[in-house]
Amino acid sequence: MTIVQTTSPLVTIAQNTRQAASKLALLSTKQRNQAIEAIAQALESAKDEILQANIADCEAAMADGIAKPLYKRLQLDEHKLRDAIAGVRDVGRLADPVGQVQIHREIDTGLILKRITCPLGVLGIIFEARPEAAIQIVSLAIKSGNGVILKGGKEAVRSCEAIVKAIKQGLSHTAVHPDAVQLLTTREEILELLQLDKYVDLIIPRGSNAFVRFVQENTRIPVLGHADGICHLYVDQSADIAKAVSITVDAKIQYPAACNAIETLLVHQSIASEFLPRIAIALQATHVEIRGDKRTLEILPDITNATDTDWETEYSDLILSIKIVDSLAEAIAHINNFGSRHTEAIITEDLKAAETFLGLVNAAGVYHNCSTRFADGFRYGFGAEVGISTQQMPPRGPVGLEGLVTYKYQMTGDGHIVTTYTGANAKSFTHKDLT
Amino acid sequence: MTIVQTTSPLVTIAQNTRQAASKLALLSTKQRNQAIEAIAQALESAKDEILQANIADCEAAMADGIAKPLYKRLQLDEHKLRDAIAGVRDVGRLADPVGQVQIHREIDTGLILKRITCPLGVLGIIFEARPEAAIQIVSLAIKSGNGVILKGGKEAVRSCEAIVKAIKQGLSHTAVHPDAVQLLTTREEILELLQLDKYVDLIIPRGSNAFVRFVQENTRIPVLGHADGICHLYVDQSADIAKAVSITVDAKIQYPAACNAIETLLVHQSIASEFLPRIAIALQATHVEIRGDKRTLEILPDITNATDTDWETEYSDLILSIKIVDSLAEAIAHINNFGSRHTEAIITEDLKAAETFLGLVNAAGVYHNCSTRFADGFRYGFGAEVGISTQQMPPRGPVGLEGLVTYKYQMTGDGHIVTTYTGANAKSFTHKDLT
Repeated sequence: MTIVQTTSPLVTIAQNTRQAASKLALLSTKQRNQAIEAIAQALESAKDEILQANIADCEAAMADGIAKPLYKRLQLDEHKLRDAIAGVRDVGRLADPVGQVQIHREIDTGLILKRITCPLGVLGIIFEARPEAAIQIVSLAIKSGNGVILKGGKEAVRSCEAIVKAIKQGLSHTAVHPDAVQLLTTREEILELLQLDKYVDLIIPRGSNAFVRFVQENTRIPVLGHADGICHLYVDQSADIAKAVSITVDAKIQYPAACNAIETLLVHQSIASEFLPRIAIALQATHVEIRGDKRTLEILPDITNATDTDWETEYSDLILSIKIVDSLAEAIAHINNFGSRHTEAIITEDLKAAETFLGLVNAAGVYHNCSTRFADGFRYGFGAEVGISTQQMPPRGPVGLEGLVTYKYQMTGDGHIVTTYTGANAKSFTHKDLT
Repeated sequence: MTIVQTTSPLVTIAQNTRQAASKLALLSTKQRNQAIEAIAQALESAKDEILQANIADCEAAMADGIAKPLYKRLQLDEHKLRDAIAGVRDVGRLADPVGQVQIHREIDTGLILKRITCPLGVLGIIFEARPEAAIQIVSLAIKSGNGVILKGGKEAVRSCEAIVKAIKQGLSHTAVHPDAVQLLTTREEILELLQLDKYVDLIIPRGSNAFVRFVQENTRIPVLGHADGICHLYVDQSADIAKAVSITVDAKIQYPAACNAIETLLVHQSIASEFLPRIAIALQATHVEIRGDKRTLEILPDITNATDTDWETEYSDLILSIKIVDSLAEAIAHINNFGSRHTEAIITEDLKAAETFLGLVNAAGVYHNCSTRFADGFRYGFGAEVGISTQQMPPRGPVGLEGLVTYKYQMTGDGHIVTTYTGANAKSFTHKDLT
């Protein structure tokens, strides 16, 4: 990697963002919400300009022979833009994640400790060709008191420029300095951004698994996101077959490209001969390709043979691999070996088996008798989702606004020194929680 | 770095630890506390063997010409061992960090979400030549439901072996498998341990700043710890001089090698001529070397000249650099530039200035009118301290047992699928918090 010169334009941008973010961090809830409303209004005023820019992006992408799904994501019509602006106002109405007092404790008379949430500082967000993502991200950043450096997909550059121009215009009449929101436009800047650990506090990559892995491997800045979503459904020997069929179909086909869709079905051997023919009919009716291990093929002879690669593949498509296991323990071992620690589910009427599964499976989400597709910040009631994390340490799983803040310990005294509490005549601490 | 072969003995050790840890994770509070008491008793029974081993370590270290402060840390007498065993029982009495329900929410009728704390898995702890550290670390690991791989300083190898042997002996009569606690004895194993991100969930390095930085730069496993503790005290124009003198002395000399001791004093120019002569007398009386910037030298002509290096140096010694600033803003800018985000304090009677300082200074601890030396898990009332983190994201600052656990989202339903909540006739979520 190249060394960042202090004269690099990106360093200057990052410094300016940090400067603006440190002022933003001190603003009241009301001031931040006013800025969010100003953004919504500015986007409404700039509607025509944004839609024109998007048409230009779409024409250029079409000329470049863009793939159809990518084109659909790139396209921003009046309806999508209106929804995105409504989303900005929704963020404005969320509870303020900043200034929450998590600990309030008297250490001794007159010596008070508070742990209080505060913004992280500057977020670096790299997203693909969906231009309205910029709108949502900026509103979440301002709500949580953070500056934000955006890098959108190159196909969406005109749209993003028009959006960010409108946002900065909106902010210019508020307490938030427009420098708090920045847009990078060249791909080369991504690597440089990943090196700015002095100025950027969190990177959120939104894109393919390969891209997220690239980001994770090329930065010392904490990364919020997951490279893989290899989720399993385990149909236990005590499963209710009707629930198992319905949940399998939902978890596979309801949105196969989602990270919380299942890739592998594990079936207890004692229920396999009853369950597998039924699920095969249901899946084939919805055009799902089934790949099975040897024992599955004995029951479903017409399906494809699953190889070892299948167990570690996120298909993101209408394909499902099936493996017969001899026990709950084997199912758990398979999941802990091949799962990506995202979301894992058991179908069973046996509460003891469910308890063991939820306890022993190592994943951000462990589910009993419901679809893995529920793993989502909005469905969890967070009001927003900034990403889904599959790391072991918090924040883990779907992350709402709480993932964009950190905390500080604030201690206030009246001349208190540690010497008073040490040695032969040491004074004791009171350690009394205050409400 | 070399590639870890799956046949490596360390991989086998790590797999065994993980296996034992996954069973440990399911034990009740009572079972874990029983194991902790069994450890205390086993250490008492093995007292003579441990002290003998330590004498052998000390003799070998002496023959190698070990430095005196290191020798003192290596030495484990009956008194130190008794204290360490008492510390084990103290950990037993702490509140259980595992199984805390952080979110309990009805998503819809019969679909219940819980966010519940659970052990991280396996901890990798690398510590220096203080053998009783192994005792404290193991009790904290068992309390939090984690397996632990220990690597102690090579000087303490016999002591650590005797301690871990006793601990495993104690565990063998409990619900915790002795494999949950492992000891590595060669330095080469450190690099290999740092590569085991598949089996180790958190690394806690305890040692020099250079060593912690080495660890941070050579692993993908999350690291709990801090490389530097460059803390400042800012004496504002509205400071009470008596408080400023007393707190400066405490924060510098009470334990100069501690990471929360101050290295630099920032003094507002309008109070400098009154404050500096007084603090100089107090510091010189306690043998603190003062280094000052040009303006400080005008008031204290006898002190050493501070160079730019001083502002970025953690002396860990009886040395203090002093700089005169023109404003609160300049003090904050200096701290945010040179501070290591550990603990920073302001001395002032001006509440507005204090509020600005606590808001704008970016550090784990921001203090008003008290000594930076309070930054400590025990003083905060956490009952234990597993490390102090200077990273931006939580856990930040002094970290108690809460830093050794993560959480899982557990969702239980009765056949619930996402399809019910999407499309034209979508059902609404209830999102009702349960108590």
